[in-house]
Amino acid sequence: MKAEIIAVGSELLLGQIVNTNAQFLSTQLAEMGISIHYHTVVGDNADRLRDAIQIAEKRADLILFSGGLGPTKDDLTKDTIAQHLGLSLVTDEKAMQFITEFFEKRNRPMTENNKKQALVFEGAEVLANHHGMAPGMFYQSSSHTYILLPGPPKELEPMFQFEAKPLVAKQIFKNQQIFSHVIRFYGIGEAELETELEDLIDTQSNPTIAPLASDGEVTIRLTAVGETEADAWSKIKEVQAEILNRVGKYVYGYNNDSLALKLKQKLSDAELTISAAESMTAGLFQAELAAIPGMAEVLVGGMVTYNEKVKVENLGVSQQTIDQYSVVSKQVAEEMATQSKNIFGSDIGVGITGAAGPDAHGGQPAGTVWIGIAFEDQVTSYELHLSGMRNTNRIRAVKFAIHYLLQLLLYKNSDEK
Amino acid sequence: MKAEIIAVGSELLLGQIVNTNAQFLSTQLAEMGISIHYHTVVGDNADRLRDAIQIAEKRADLILFSGGLGPTKDDLTKDTIAQHLGLSLVTDEKAMQFITEFFEKRNRPMTENNKKQALVFEGAEVLANHHGMAPGMFYQSSSHTYILLPGPPKELEPMFQFEAKPLVAKQIFKNQQIFSHVIRFYGIGEAELETELEDLIDTQSNPTIAPLASDGEVTIRLTAVGETEADAWSKIKEVQAEILNRVGKYVYGYNNDSLALKLKQKLSDAELTISAAESMTAGLFQAELAAIPGMAEVLVGGMVTYNEKVKVENLGVSQQTIDQYSVVSKQVAEEMATQSKNIFGSDIGVGITGAAGPDAHGGQPAGTVWIGIAFEDQVTSYELHLSGMRNTNRIRAVKFAIHYLLQLLLYKNSDEK
Repeated sequence: MKAEIIAVGSELLLGQIVNTNAQFLSTQLAEMGISIHYHTVVGDNADRLRDAIQIAEKRADLILFSGGLGPTKDDLTKDTIAQHLGLSLVTDEKAMQFITEFFEKRNRPMTENNKKQALVFEGAEVLANHHGMAPGMFYQSSSHTYILLPGPPKELEPMFQFEAKPLVAKQIFKNQQIFSHVIRFYGIGEAELETELEDLIDTQSNPTIAPLASDGEVTIRLTAVGETEADAWSKIKEVQAEILNRVGKYVYGYNNDSLALKLKQKLSDAELTISAAESMTAGLFQAELAAIPGMAEVLVGGMVTYNEKVKVENLGVSQQTIDQYSVVSKQVAEEMATQSKNIFGSDIGVGITGAAGPDAHGGQPAGTVWIGIAFEDQVTSYELHLSGMRNTNRIRAVKFAIHYLLQLLLYKNSDEK
Repeated sequence: MKAEIIAVGSELLLGQIVNTNAQFLSTQLAEMGISIHYHTVVGDNADRLRDAIQIAEKRADLILFSGGLGPTKDDLTKDTIAQHLGLSLVTDEKAMQFITEFFEKRNRPMTENNKKQALVFEGAEVLANHHGMAPGMFYQSSSHTYILLPGPPKELEPMFQFEAKPLVAKQIFKNQQIFSHVIRFYGIGEAELETELEDLIDTQSNPTIAPLASDGEVTIRLTAVGETEADAWSKIKEVQAEILNRVGKYVYGYNNDSLALKLKQKLSDAELTISAAESMTAGLFQAELAAIPGMAEVLVGGMVTYNEKVKVENLGVSQQTIDQYSVVSKQVAEEMATQSKNIFGSDIGVGITGAAGPDAHGGQPAGTVWIGIAFEDQVTSYELHLSGMRNTNRIRAVKFAIHYLLQLLLYKNSDEK
């Protein structure tokens, strides 16, 4: 099955908004193994929309439309398609009731044009809109399937996932269930991960195995089809076990986990507190942790030691260590971690020093980072050589610090893996 | 003149990235008065790309391509268009030199496929790439104009603005000059700004006035056409003077300024140093400043006082003040600022405390923020009531702190405005 997405809206052509609907629908369709060959964006113009439909019909079986279902005269997706396919429009009673109640609840008069939103193609399956007024549609002609969705992402996304997707799945997979699961990695690149799993990826079919890299993290999405959800899930579990067997040490979580969230959970479970002394990252490590609500349970605070004087006078790193080893060194990172732990009275202290770039710093080339972690009576340190731009290096250093902390805590705790 | 944007890349069709290039190019073309009737996205497939070009040629005069100029076998935009138009490819010496130097500098061997990037159409104007290896192209056939741009936004955006746009402008405006200028605002919303400037926006023609909001900042882009650059610039200056007259107190900079960059410049000029004590923002203020290279000139460091004990024992805020006024209060923000200045020996101390959300904190509802600034013998404080989600509130608080610092420094320094 080949699909095409047609987004309708002049605001897209003016650059006022970005076409995130196409991205959302693309990931959803890719998950189901449906190939998309084109995205098209067209303005609020009936002639040009009709041309776009005719072109799409030549190159796709499934055509998805976003936008143009509203009450104003600019909203012409429904009328244009109806005319093109020779379909009549009938009022959907459920949708009409929903719209009427919407205005009654708000004590606002309903203008005539709002009724237009309740009109649907005769013979279409109506897709309920739980976040707005205009319903969507799923319509099958003898040759094509047409799915009409509203433009606002908060209406389109749930409508596709819960209303349209099951109908598409039914069409493709008949009575089968589709199920998806994400494994999250850190500390391994996408290319390296693909190499480790090359044979699995090459022979994949059910589940499909889709790696994706972003912001230094890599995820793998496993999507399986089965007679039942349990059947699909057992297919996923089997492949997941083999993946964990090969690259399990880089796995930090699943589905909606994030590195910071995972760290908070681990620290909470172990009843441990943390503090940090940050030089190159200048507070970014602590700020990233504090992005998670409730982080105050485990994050005590810390210091930003941006200049050398603060490192020595406020944090208490020895001037001799800096002079002997340079400000970007294993020894300074370790002293920063230890002093942070001591000064702020936390169970764990983290020290981060490095040369973010673009220039060298402390005699080290841009991209050199030392991370120290003081925990119990031990100090462990890690060296990184990053090759990104200044701010990419800073965020990567933060994520590596969280990754190393998670690895360290793994040895202390049993893990759910 | 009618334009179409064709983005080439399978990663777009898989939903791995969103087509921000189409948005960027659309706003740029809209500014020049060029109508865009379609956006198309096509994968890394020569046949389908050729079909898309043939369709675009029927409906547009100017066709812009993004992506597919790199060294790998997936990068087929250039070859496909050359073949379609019957053009031969020749090596651009400047581009080749740039690529060779790129590998030499990094001490990495240059593989043969990298040379492919220096190939350009015979007769095309070459668009220099200052942020990557693959050059772009501007090519005019007897019927159409073709612009080829690289896929990464950080390469595409400057290449379009500084290399391609002047060529398009020359084509449209003949001997006239087009000139664009951005005014940057903070502390005023987009709706409020538009209301203040409504009559100017409604009657705009030359320059055009385009407001845009993002991340709590608002910008206005003024674009003028004139016989000479000086002529266009004088038209912009006239409208800018009226805008500054009405809403000048919210202006913090122009063009590529950022709040943090502006603050660094002001502090450097005045030879002042800064430190901060952060609670709700947990290091984000200092991290945002440190995103600017060379910030070590003015940023000393500071403390993240995430829990109350650290505020009292490490920073030296009085327990009595916290008990009497709550941890989210004017008094605590001011003490944090003063103690930061004292402890870290900086000229300016900043204190930020608040309830980021989702829950209330220190007896204050989510979104309440207090910012204290200690400078010379004075402490000034500011109260915010933000209505965003947790992390939006945190970044807004940081930007407001920088905004207030800039305002405070304005009274101390003469300004270029």
